[in-house]
Amino acid sequence: MVPHLTTSLTGPLQELERLVLDRRPEIERWFREQWQEHLVPFYSSVDLRNSGFKLAPVDTNLFPGGFNNLNPDFLPLCVHAAMSAVQRVCPDARGFLIVPENHTRNLHYLQNVAVLKRIVEDAGYTVRIGSLIPDLQAPMEVQTSAGETVRLEPVRRQGDRVGVEGFDPCAVLLNNDLSAGIPSILRGIEQPVVPPVQAGWSTRRKSHHFHVYDRVADDFAKLVGIDPWFINPHFSQCGKVNFAEKEGEECLASNVEHVLAEVREKYAQYGITETPFAIVKADAGTYGMGIMTVKSADDVRNLNRKTRNKMAVIKEGQPVNEVIIQEGVYTFESVDGAVAEPVVYMIDQFVVGGFYRVHTGRGTDENLNSPGAQYAPLAFETDCHSPDCGGKPGDPPNRFYTYGVVARLAALAAAVEVEELVAAADAPEVQAANA
Amino acid sequence: MVPHLTTSLTGPLQELERLVLDRRPEIERWFREQWQEHLVPFYSSVDLRNSGFKLAPVDTNLFPGGFNNLNPDFLPLCVHAAMSAVQRVCPDARGFLIVPENHTRNLHYLQNVAVLKRIVEDAGYTVRIGSLIPDLQAPMEVQTSAGETVRLEPVRRQGDRVGVEGFDPCAVLLNNDLSAGIPSILRGIEQPVVPPVQAGWSTRRKSHHFHVYDRVADDFAKLVGIDPWFINPHFSQCGKVNFAEKEGEECLASNVEHVLAEVREKYAQYGITETPFAIVKADAGTYGMGIMTVKSADDVRNLNRKTRNKMAVIKEGQPVNEVIIQEGVYTFESVDGAVAEPVVYMIDQFVVGGFYRVHTGRGTDENLNSPGAQYAPLAFETDCHSPDCGGKPGDPPNRFYTYGVVARLAALAAAVEVEELVAAADAPEVQAANA
Repeated sequence: MVPHLTTSLTGPLQELERLVLDRRPEIERWFREQWQEHLVPFYSSVDLRNSGFKLAPVDTNLFPGGFNNLNPDFLPLCVHAAMSAVQRVCPDARGFLIVPENHTRNLHYLQNVAVLKRIVEDAGYTVRIGSLIPDLQAPMEVQTSAGETVRLEPVRRQGDRVGVEGFDPCAVLLNNDLSAGIPSILRGIEQPVVPPVQAGWSTRRKSHHFHVYDRVADDFAKLVGIDPWFINPHFSQCGKVNFAEKEGEECLASNVEHVLAEVREKYAQYGITETPFAIVKADAGTYGMGIMTVKSADDVRNLNRKTRNKMAVIKEGQPVNEVIIQEGVYTFESVDGAVAEPVVYMIDQFVVGGFYRVHTGRGTDENLNSPGAQYAPLAFETDCHSPDCGGKPGDPPNRFYTYGVVARLAALAAAVEVEELVAAADAPEVQAANA
Repeated sequence: MVPHLTTSLTGPLQELERLVLDRRPEIERWFREQWQEHLVPFYSSVDLRNSGFKLAPVDTNLFPGGFNNLNPDFLPLCVHAAMSAVQRVCPDARGFLIVPENHTRNLHYLQNVAVLKRIVEDAGYTVRIGSLIPDLQAPMEVQTSAGETVRLEPVRRQGDRVGVEGFDPCAVLLNNDLSAGIPSILRGIEQPVVPPVQAGWSTRRKSHHFHVYDRVADDFAKLVGIDPWFINPHFSQCGKVNFAEKEGEECLASNVEHVLAEVREKYAQYGITETPFAIVKADAGTYGMGIMTVKSADDVRNLNRKTRNKMAVIKEGQPVNEVIIQEGVYTFESVDGAVAEPVVYMIDQFVVGGFYRVHTGRGTDENLNSPGAQYAPLAFETDCHSPDCGGKPGDPPNRFYTYGVVARLAALAAAVEVEELVAAADAPEVQAANA
């Protein structure tokens, strides 16, 4: 089941795919060099948008929660990749503690936890699940959407180590994006935590990620000889916004205008006749919360109460004060007539699968990560490391290889971003402030 | 398509599988430790025999030639594993030279070369095929059994580097077992050669491999708490045999008797009622040549001329002077009524697939690697890293996980064996002799 592109597939994207396929050895060599310099994230997922003329990452998740949506045929790829990933973290030991989100009613998310547990187990580790649910006193068994049982156990701390009753893991695998802040039970522990706690949304910013991505995309564009705009959405940011109090509206409006002007210029340059749009979203947000589509600066002036409320508060009740204004990338992909966007999953340096996020109630210029989204797990008919170079650009294996390349660029940006976050947290003035 | 075992699957093997599944985290941890100490072979394949009461490697190939027989669904696993393997050899560069066997009429072998080339290409390298065919002056294109075209180019040497016209690779991947000796064009070159030339059959000995395997099997047996005999065939060797001249017959007879006596004792210990047998084979042999089944010492006395001729000379016309006498392991597996044995393929530390070697004209106590053998590439319905621990021992995923474990033990023995071969070649007295 491969979703067809409704775009006619002529013009720049085909050109991009042809270039990517032609330069595959150089590209893979370049990635190898990058992964020697930067620690690859344990895992990541990247939302891509393919407008036919542009293929770009729009969100990079360091705590991917959709392993249940992957094609089960590709789980062996996940296991092999996890063997590489865990070996970096715990070469000598054998126990892993997965710390998931606190959701106990999102049965699909719980199935994600079950699949993730199985992947790490199949990589040869004992795995227990340590929950941060407040007031959880004893182990709790919950049923997943697939009818499996997940056992959540309260995380316990002893000195500088964490674990669960009778289990002292060698490392902690976070599948919790720490939107509510870094929990004290995980601060200053001696076990490695992957991804590091600084990669959580209490410290991470989308704008930081895309600043780093600018550099990665520029380097890559130089390597293959393209305009980096074909793989990189413009963006801008506002640091002091309060939707509830109508503060920062002018900053928003002028930055929307700025981003749209840049996009208009590029559309003119390449003869693209679509209407430019931008996405306004919380700079620290996730779960598709706090996101709106705008087509002019006026769209962010005089927001109605409903929209302001929607934008003001996101996951875990965190207020939105920082906002990123990102060039909107149309998605011209569809699955069974519904608007779709690809999500690519990586473990270690490997693309391990992907799926389409499909939304019947949304347009090609809207965020699809919202209530009502469905997932098409079988969509990737081929893995992303095996292009058929004899085939035409646009054939599924080639399209998906290109998707894998762009997703890995975003993962590389995330690697540099996390290095910078960890370095900042280790700086003496920060340590003093946290003491 | 999973071949069923015709044995009833009671008794020790089930016990072995249960133990292997129960101790999976310890086993995987142990492998990780081993691969930190020993350089994993670039690739390998292991012939296993499963008698229901015993599961053991009987041959370990460091130049596997059956990638065309793997389940195509598992090629992504090969690519990921190859990414790890090539990264060890050539992290900074991007060109690989594959040096295959000189066969140009074995179209299945040529298809193996085509698949291997694709795997390394998909791992992100430029690949050319450098042939050692004598007197090959110009590139030659040959058709494979699958109708693909393979371009063989003469290997050229410039100073201390080898390559093909216009291509200076960073490394040489040998898919040629060097039965005829180490070619001078590959001696003393500055590029890495994987596997090292010392792993070829001009220097390698089966008996050396199984001496090392004894130690590996003992360590592993201690880890899981079993009698190592369940995973290790007894063997002995004769160093001075000449079948054509009827020399060394008494050495052979007494060693056959010795091996059979050991097997009889074990059969008695475990209440096994089968008739013990042994396999006599060339210590440096391959391609299933120079192999015979014997059930008593008398079977090697007064061999008829036909058998002596068969045993006297193997691949590339090499005479057989050294012989290994190995405990025969019945294969109680069958595919469509024909006798079958599993072959497990590994790249780097990863099990990447396998197939059944099937022979309609052979018995359960005979070598199947002989003219008339067929291959059942779809046999492994599941990959070897994903056991279903909830399932019963003997269920396909569990059986194949166990197969993957035993195959990896043989690969580990090969790793140590190659280290010893390289160290021996580097010893000053050997270098002086070769000077």
